[in-house]
Amino acid sequence: MKAAILTVGTEILFGEITNTNTVFLSRRLNDIGIDVMYHYTVGDNPVRLAEMIETSLKDCDIVLTTGGLGPTQDDMTKEIACQVMGDHLVMHDDILDFIRNRLLAYKAEMSENNIKQALLPSRCRVFFNDAGTAPGFALDRENEGKRQWIACMPGPPKEMTRMFERSVIPWLEELTEGSLVYKEIRTFGIGESDLETALLPLIDGQTDPTLATYAKNGECSVRVASKRSTREEAEAAVDEMIREVEKYVGKYIYSTEGDEYPVVVGNMLMSRGLTISAAESCTGGMFGAALTDIPGISSVFDRSLVTYSNQAKMDELGVKAETLEKHGAVSEEVALEMADGVRKKSGTDIGISVTGIAGPDGDTEDKHVGLVYIGLSLGEKCGGKTICRKIDRRIRERQRNRRHAVLSMFDMIYRNI
Amino acid sequence: MKAAILTVGTEILFGEITNTNTVFLSRRLNDIGIDVMYHYTVGDNPVRLAEMIETSLKDCDIVLTTGGLGPTQDDMTKEIACQVMGDHLVMHDDILDFIRNRLLAYKAEMSENNIKQALLPSRCRVFFNDAGTAPGFALDRENEGKRQWIACMPGPPKEMTRMFERSVIPWLEELTEGSLVYKEIRTFGIGESDLETALLPLIDGQTDPTLATYAKNGECSVRVASKRSTREEAEAAVDEMIREVEKYVGKYIYSTEGDEYPVVVGNMLMSRGLTISAAESCTGGMFGAALTDIPGISSVFDRSLVTYSNQAKMDELGVKAETLEKHGAVSEEVALEMADGVRKKSGTDIGISVTGIAGPDGDTEDKHVGLVYIGLSLGEKCGGKTICRKIDRRIRERQRNRRHAVLSMFDMIYRNI
Repeated sequence: MKAAILTVGTEILFGEITNTNTVFLSRRLNDIGIDVMYHYTVGDNPVRLAEMIETSLKDCDIVLTTGGLGPTQDDMTKEIACQVMGDHLVMHDDILDFIRNRLLAYKAEMSENNIKQALLPSRCRVFFNDAGTAPGFALDRENEGKRQWIACMPGPPKEMTRMFERSVIPWLEELTEGSLVYKEIRTFGIGESDLETALLPLIDGQTDPTLATYAKNGECSVRVASKRSTREEAEAAVDEMIREVEKYVGKYIYSTEGDEYPVVVGNMLMSRGLTISAAESCTGGMFGAALTDIPGISSVFDRSLVTYSNQAKMDELGVKAETLEKHGAVSEEVALEMADGVRKKSGTDIGISVTGIAGPDGDTEDKHVGLVYIGLSLGEKCGGKTICRKIDRRIRERQRNRRHAVLSMFDMIYRNI
Repeated sequence: MKAAILTVGTEILFGEITNTNTVFLSRRLNDIGIDVMYHYTVGDNPVRLAEMIETSLKDCDIVLTTGGLGPTQDDMTKEIACQVMGDHLVMHDDILDFIRNRLLAYKAEMSENNIKQALLPSRCRVFFNDAGTAPGFALDRENEGKRQWIACMPGPPKEMTRMFERSVIPWLEELTEGSLVYKEIRTFGIGESDLETALLPLIDGQTDPTLATYAKNGECSVRVASKRSTREEAEAAVDEMIREVEKYVGKYIYSTEGDEYPVVVGNMLMSRGLTISAAESCTGGMFGAALTDIPGISSVFDRSLVTYSNQAKMDELGVKAETLEKHGAVSEEVALEMADGVRKKSGTDIGISVTGIAGPDGDTEDKHVGLVYIGLSLGEKCGGKTICRKIDRRIRERQRNRRHAVLSMFDMIYRNI
């Protein structure tokens, strides 16, 4: 089955928004064995939108659209989809009820615009939106003896991705007659080309499950997908392949369920009841910010002391003036004192610290941009020791260095408790 | 002048890469007054690539491509561009020299593949690549009495963006015979629809300079663009329009140069030599992380104490147990004590604090998710007072509440010093 992805929205053509919907849909469609042939983006213009849907369906069996489902004048995807596929809009009472109930939950009134959102094609399959008010839908037509489909979803990524996973995937599984399961293995500490090389024996000649590596924000992940006649078979095939992947690159893996490092570490701490505090320098609070993205983390996260100045390191963490003097703020000795200092002060089980030169400037005679030390102080419950990891990347990009330092902090905790 | 952007590469269709090139090109083309009508992506397939170039040029004067200029079998943009535009590849000796010299600098040998990269259309305008080895080029044709262009650039964003700024922009300014200037006005505290309504008298019927509002991450901005025969004229027209915008919504504006809040506040603190410390609760370190994104901020930023637990608030900031007991951690009284506490402890000119319920859960009888208090403690240099702002948004999304709280902290500083 061949697919085109069509993004609708003038704001995309203005470059105001990065089109992450298309990346998401491309991956997920490839996962379920649907070939993505084209990406298209068109503005909020009825003539061009209609033409673009026709262009999409010239080569493809299905076009998936995002955007243009809102209630304003600009939004016209429903109308144009009807025009091209041969249908008309009618009021769907079940949708109207659904929207009314959603709004009630937020104590909001039903407006004229909300009512308009319950107008959908007469013979469509409805996709409910449980993150917003605009429903999605799928519609088909017969064209030169072939069946063709359009599936329309809202533009906001949160609404679109939920709708896709919960409603569109099951509908596509019906169309393609098969169950597809995919999982994402997340790794840290190995580059994409090394990862691919290591997995070559598994990737080569492999048709199902399929394996693909992706790099993003300094991490690499491996996606494993299988399509079988039942969900159970597909799941078993994926799980078996994950065990194979673990044999080759197990030491770099931290999640086989696609979870990011803060979530993996946060859940580990919460389930084991281990409390944590942090002492951050070059990351400026990014570690605490990442960890506190997790609801409920307050049960284990006590504090993070962002000690940017040397004075703050001495005041807050008890780092010794002579240690700073002798070894400099970016040193193993200071990282260790910072980790011990914050753990003892807060009385937590774990203290983690970071100090480094994020760049782009700040090289000294013997230390250069990219040099980072991470300290880990473990209380009795976790083995009672303090250790340090040195990172020496010689990369001059401030953001990349800071992001890598934060991931390394999570890695350091994950590998040592 | 109407443009299409065409991305070439199967990896994009697999969703392996987020298409940031298209965002960049869309913005920059809009900036210089070229209307972007379509985005297209096609895989490394000669037939579909040729079709897509023709499709692009059906409605548009120019198509800009990225990708497919490398030396491997997959790369065929040059060949197909020649086929569609009516030209053929010839060896360009100046390019060959350029590539040889680049490789020499890296002590690398010239390979068969490198030589192939000096093959370019016979009558093209060459765009040198000073970040890689694949040159770009522009080619034109006469089609039904109209002149049309294709501009081909390499795929790696670093190579593409440099080539675009240094070589393609000057070429486009020659084609469009004019200079374009744009500026971005950033606001905080007003929603997009209110902003648009307020500016309607300026937007309606306005052809040059143009005004457009954009919303992103809880903030709204206004882009002002003018195209005139000289850069000076365009700049004067933009600046005059900015003064008009200030008359209508001046109190919400914090930058007329497109800078984000951390940059604006960070630069203000650095230029005035005012030191700052922070006490964060619900934001978990995001304020410190945002401020320390700015290189050089260590001259004014001392520390941020992320006091997540009540114990940490008492230990680190001297918040009184009875204040916590009587008013709760999320209260004006605690926000004020936090701000004073961190400022006095660190000896900075400014102390900023935040405490709130980020959600999605955590409502109490009298306090609900979304409630946030921001405290600002100002030393003698800044007026010597401590004030508080209450934010009461009733939004249940943790991320949005946290992001809004951080922006409000910057806003609180900006408006009060």
